Amino acid sequence: MSYLETLKIINNLAAFNRWCGIEVILADHGEAAIAIDWRDEFGQYSGYLHAGLVATLIDTACGYAATTVIGPRLLAANFSVNCLRPAIGQRFVARARVVKPGKSQVFTTCDLFACDADGEKLVANGQTLLTVLAAP
Amino acid sequence: MSYLETLKIINNLAAFNRWCGIEVILADHGEAAIAIDWRDEFGQYSGYLHAGLVATLIDTACGYAATTVIGPRLLAANFSVNCLRPAIGQRFVARARVVKPGKSQVFTTCDLFACDADGEKLVANGQTLLTVLAAP
Amino acid sequence: MSYLETLKIINNLAAFNRWCGIEVILADHGEAAIAIDWRDEFGQYSGYLHAGLVATLIDTACGYAATTVIGPRLLAANFSVNCLRPAIGQRFVARARVVKPGKSQVFTTCDLFACDADGEKLVANGQTLLTVLAAP
Amino acid sequence: MSYLETLKIINNLAAFNRWCGIEVILADHGEAAIAIDWRDEFGQYSGYLHAGLVATLIDTACGYAATTVIGPRLLAANFSVNCLRPAIGQRFVARARVVKPGKSQVFTTCDLFACDADGEKLVANGQTLLTVLAAP
Repeated sequence: MSYLETLKIINNLAAFNRWCGIEVILADHGEAAIAIDWRDEFGQYSGYLHAGLVATLIDTACGYAATTVIGPRLLAANFSVNCLRPAIGQRFVARARVVKPGKSQVFTTCDLFACDADGEKLVANGQTLLTVLAAP
Repeated sequence: MSYLETLKIINNLAAFNRWCGIEVILADHGEAAIAIDWRDEFGQYSGYLHAGLVATLIDTACGYAATTVIGPRLLAANFSVNCLRPAIGQRFVARARVVKPGKSQVFTTCDLFACDADGEKLVANGQTLLTVLAAP
Repeated sequence: MSYLETLKIINNLAAFNRWCGIEVILADHGEAAIAIDWRDEFGQYSGYLHAGLVATLIDTACGYAATTVIGPRLLAANFSVNCLRPAIGQRFVARARVVKPGKSQVFTTCDLFACDADGEKLVANGQTLLTVLAAP
Repeated sequence: MSYLETLKIINNLAAFNRWCGIEVILADHGEAAIAIDWRDEFGQYSGYLHAGLVATLIDTACGYAATTVIGPRLLAANFSVNCLRPAIGQRFVARARVVKPGKSQVFTTCDLFACDADGEKLVANGQTLLTVLAAP
């Protein structure tokens, strides 16, 4: 099975990812990208994409990038997000990659872009440190 | 108006907070607590509370704690979340406080508890650095 | 051997800790505190304690708190530091505690105080996520 | 004055940077690189570069990258460091760049490389969020 097919199956297992409408749009060894289309339910008090959804996209894309290298037995231990600009757009794309895989932990990084008719703009970035779970 | 009334009004302005069903349950000078009741839509792939919603609760509670000191003209610049234990519960409560307010930025911290019939358990913690926006 | 004696031995093994003059001043299960006396060599460009030394104290105190619970086979995976106020003082004390110990990782937190004739003031805080190393 | 000359002057103002022997080796608009040569005084308990010095290099390089865009009136508000591999080498080089400059804050990122006869290896990365100070 391709990386993309694997991630689509995993993505479909998560109820919140389905509610958000997260699509897996790219997957390669150590890399993944996901996207959502804007909906009014996603807004914070000024109508920008809520920081919690910024985190959702960054954490999810980082987890998927790690999954392409380590498999799905991973949990986020720590993640950190920088809100660089107001997250306003018709569509949001998170592009993540593995910085350093390891036996017990995986370091990843991610950029989040807001897209509209004028192109795409970097609105947030972040990093996730994932713990590799022991075999069941 | 009391801190609690003010935060309830602000909370009601954010579409995503309404979708999550976030309740403001405590507000004092430099402190705020919010809660949500578990719904199946909140799950990640193992059925725990999605890390993006862990971040939503931590970021929101931190923002509300800061609002009690500085007012609502704030945006999160950076937040960091530690996932200490699987976030499983019937209800989740985030308790935040201001560590250091300032003219241009506010440092806050937050603990997230999962609650069920057995009591409450710390499942995540985090911090948010908020930027104070200039008057419009 | 007491926690304090153990940490003093470990502290003495690190050349940079010796150069800084780090003293272990408190150790209990899940807790540790260390201190340094100000020297002019520690300054950044304005003469405050250099952020790298703020990090040194926070990372070291967190590692020692974790060591009281897990033993010394630990390495910092990620640490994050907030510089709350200019770090000016005659002496600096870092007080750390374990938030959540685990088999493969330990979450810790730390406050850094600057001390002078007027008392002590919180100047920075931070957190360290440590990885437990496998037995050799 | 060139960016490189400016940063060398600033670097020489900081007592701790002088003790470390930090050299500014590259400066361009939004970018800076610094280096140190290994000395035994830099070691943690296993003889690797101490995490506090890893932080020193990352924080300093990030500050210098920001200075090329904003000038020197900056203080680190938050920095976060990932220790990817044991930091062992004859020389360490930190390469930083500005991710997003702003009026009140600057977001930066940095990679730290350990260098020896075999070439250079990424051993840590990190990010610094700097606050722009008001004019005196």
